[in-house]
Amino acid sequence: MNNLKRIYKESLGLLTDFYQLTMSYGYFKKGMAEREAVFNLFFRSNPFSGGYTVMAGLSRVIDYLNNFKFSASDIDYLATLKDGDGNAYFDEAFLEYLGDMKFECTIDAQPDGSIIFPHEPVIRVKGPLMQCQILETPLLTIVGQAALIATKASRITSVTGDEPVMEFGLRRAQGIDGALTGSLSSYIGGCHSTSNVLAGKLFGIPVSGTHSHSWVMAFQSELEAFEAYADVMPGNCVLLVDTYNTLEGVKKAVKIGLDLKEKGKKLKAIRVDSGDLAYLSIEARKILDAAGLKDTRIVGSNDLDEYLIASLKDQGATITMWGVGTKLITSFDQPALGQVYKMTAIKNKDGEWKNRIKLSEQNIKINMPGILNVRRFFVNGKMAGDMIFDERDKMDDYRIIAPDDFTKRKKFGMDTQYKDLLKPIFEQGNQTYQVPSFEESRQYHLAQRNMLDASSRRLVNPHLYPVGLEPKLFERRSELIIKLRNR
Amino acid sequence: MNNLKRIYKESLGLLTDFYQLTMSYGYFKKGMAEREAVFNLFFRSNPFSGGYTVMAGLSRVIDYLNNFKFSASDIDYLATLKDGDGNAYFDEAFLEYLGDMKFECTIDAQPDGSIIFPHEPVIRVKGPLMQCQILETPLLTIVGQAALIATKASRITSVTGDEPVMEFGLRRAQGIDGALTGSLSSYIGGCHSTSNVLAGKLFGIPVSGTHSHSWVMAFQSELEAFEAYADVMPGNCVLLVDTYNTLEGVKKAVKIGLDLKEKGKKLKAIRVDSGDLAYLSIEARKILDAAGLKDTRIVGSNDLDEYLIASLKDQGATITMWGVGTKLITSFDQPALGQVYKMTAIKNKDGEWKNRIKLSEQNIKINMPGILNVRRFFVNGKMAGDMIFDERDKMDDYRIIAPDDFTKRKKFGMDTQYKDLLKPIFEQGNQTYQVPSFEESRQYHLAQRNMLDASSRRLVNPHLYPVGLEPKLFERRSELIIKLRNR
Repeated sequence: MNNLKRIYKESLGLLTDFYQLTMSYGYFKKGMAEREAVFNLFFRSNPFSGGYTVMAGLSRVIDYLNNFKFSASDIDYLATLKDGDGNAYFDEAFLEYLGDMKFECTIDAQPDGSIIFPHEPVIRVKGPLMQCQILETPLLTIVGQAALIATKASRITSVTGDEPVMEFGLRRAQGIDGALTGSLSSYIGGCHSTSNVLAGKLFGIPVSGTHSHSWVMAFQSELEAFEAYADVMPGNCVLLVDTYNTLEGVKKAVKIGLDLKEKGKKLKAIRVDSGDLAYLSIEARKILDAAGLKDTRIVGSNDLDEYLIASLKDQGATITMWGVGTKLITSFDQPALGQVYKMTAIKNKDGEWKNRIKLSEQNIKINMPGILNVRRFFVNGKMAGDMIFDERDKMDDYRIIAPDDFTKRKKFGMDTQYKDLLKPIFEQGNQTYQVPSFEESRQYHLAQRNMLDASSRRLVNPHLYPVGLEPKLFERRSELIIKLRNR
Repeated sequence: MNNLKRIYKESLGLLTDFYQLTMSYGYFKKGMAEREAVFNLFFRSNPFSGGYTVMAGLSRVIDYLNNFKFSASDIDYLATLKDGDGNAYFDEAFLEYLGDMKFECTIDAQPDGSIIFPHEPVIRVKGPLMQCQILETPLLTIVGQAALIATKASRITSVTGDEPVMEFGLRRAQGIDGALTGSLSSYIGGCHSTSNVLAGKLFGIPVSGTHSHSWVMAFQSELEAFEAYADVMPGNCVLLVDTYNTLEGVKKAVKIGLDLKEKGKKLKAIRVDSGDLAYLSIEARKILDAAGLKDTRIVGSNDLDEYLIASLKDQGATITMWGVGTKLITSFDQPALGQVYKMTAIKNKDGEWKNRIKLSEQNIKINMPGILNVRRFFVNGKMAGDMIFDERDKMDDYRIIAPDDFTKRKKFGMDTQYKDLLKPIFEQGNQTYQVPSFEESRQYHLAQRNMLDASSRRLVNPHLYPVGLEPKLFERRSELIIKLRNR
């Protein structure tokens, strides 16, 4: 038995929650499977108590959708499933329908690398009710992790500025695909390279890495290990100095650095992976500088995240290259984005659109109804506010009302520069969007991030970027809530 | 471009950190690639401040190892990589060697479902240095997540006892493979079913699920939605009652339950997915009981974990089926196990074994050197203590010394029942282990968990299960540390 190989050859139609299929069966039996509906994928708050979120995963959603089908063996499997009474869950007509199903949805989305905010539609799915329903789970699975890690990477790289950040997370990732998505998302969020060689090959991301403690342990002495490494890797010599005693390790690295210098090469960097990184990097810098190795850099690693890096910088750490692993790849301090996917409109039997909300005790947890898009306003080249609006509404002016506090309002002049954020991705099942390269998505993100005010990029207690509802949408949602709560 | 399909057809040789390959190159160039070495995979503390950890992922490690190779396209990719000077990282002789490499390691491991403890070898890899080295990353990637989620599942199912726990985590998982591993590991840790249909198909795990809020929103009214669901799913009717108002929803579900009862069917359960689960389940129970629906169960879900479930039980919640998602699949309160993989011995040029440790400021972070196994002692059918020992040592008695406190000692009589925990998995590259079914691994875990004293299974401040070093190993390690620290 070889599950790994088996998994990778499977169709991914069954990569969904079982209830999507029991509901699909219900829609089918009730003649509602092809009724047109609209669902939005969105989230309710920025992760890490931050000021923004980074979109990622769209390229993989597109791959998934282009392969969306139920294979013969998927159908065979579903035919074996029995309910509590021992009867088959699904009848033959439904299974045949499922096996013949062709993807027909129209998808609009915010591109990878976008700065996205709570309550805004990130992906909008319009199409046959049953298809929209089944897509809920895979879309959440693919986008949730990707956006979370891209956001974490963006926070980290916004602290390090021009200093390279190397993503080292593979060994702490959630499995193989989790690692690949993590490396790609880290890159889109601004990291410079990954240690994951397979991600390098598949996505064209730069790979980096030098040696570990076991290299040193494989030799009789640390110096012998360093000499051997410099000998075989003269063009990429980074020495890990903390296997036994960090500052003694630095002194040995200096010997290697001077040897390399004599040969017209250089010791690119030393790496410190444990202990007090501020103290050790400052002392190591002194040792390197005193020996004339001023352009040998110091790489720091060991459970780093944006807060620890910021703190090390405050303490005068002389690290100028950063290796981040666990805290980035697992999104350690918030390992789930909590994004959701809700029906916002559905046609009734007569073909008329009906807006939909799901009630909740907290007003702010109730979704925005309708067929929505987001308009982003720019003032002096900076992002100034986002308006969620229903595409079917005509606007006489540009006003927004905060969804959680109707007294918070903002108005933009009719001549304010803007762009609508949802881009057409699929038109009735056919891909219309040209996927940019991953490097382009990364550059796009960095450019967008620069357009967000620094106060909203702050790690702690950031300024709340204004996102509001267009007034007609605000009214419509309020009326729906009041009606449903009081019926 | 179709990354998803591409990924799933790739060989997984490159699923490793780049430094494993630069080190491999170094070993190859220095004639050390085939020198025999031993590495151990272990971890340093139980996750969630708990009293034990659950092994999982071994079946997938075996799949991986049976396919361990570098394909022609992997080699082509590596040939394109350039170092800081613009020279190729790897020469042709090495790339040819890598392309021809055949897996030759001998692997011993603790089986899936095992109760494992800090510092013990979980997987022991013995073989050519270069192969041992490359395996570091994929082994950590595969086992880390699996063991973490199996442990979380075990904690949750130890609180729920005989009540079914359904794993609903797919949408919050780290990608596709992260989700599949998560579902499988949750099952091994004691969960009863998964919502992930693909996991059901691939691993033969029971699948479960009914309907979501969008089912209710697709109809004109909640009652209409319930009627339709009962009509199409009479053998598995679980109604989600909190789309609009929970207790009103329960009253509508009662109507359906009475209708089903008349037809000789039954309303299997209602599900509450928001709000105060203690209050709502108690009130819902009253409504159901008053209507004579005493065997309609209540499913609770919404960000549940072991602590919240325990608290709900304390509060008298009448939930008897549990849906757990985010907190389980992301291992939310500790998303990385922090397991490590260290060289413990290597042969020198003369073919003699040399023990190895990696120093650290903290004694307890220093690995155990040698060729190790674990002996578990049983007293009155309960696990009584584990001894880490070097297989090359002869023992006159069974004494253990705590690795972090040499004053803590324990002795077992020579007639104490025991078993050695590492099982042979591969012998020089050939699989010798018959992988049990996932159901067998789950049963094995539940049986093992019963042999662990309740005090060590406690969620908070558990009793520390005794794990110690055999005295000769303790002495040898201490001498190595003192020698390395003082040279």
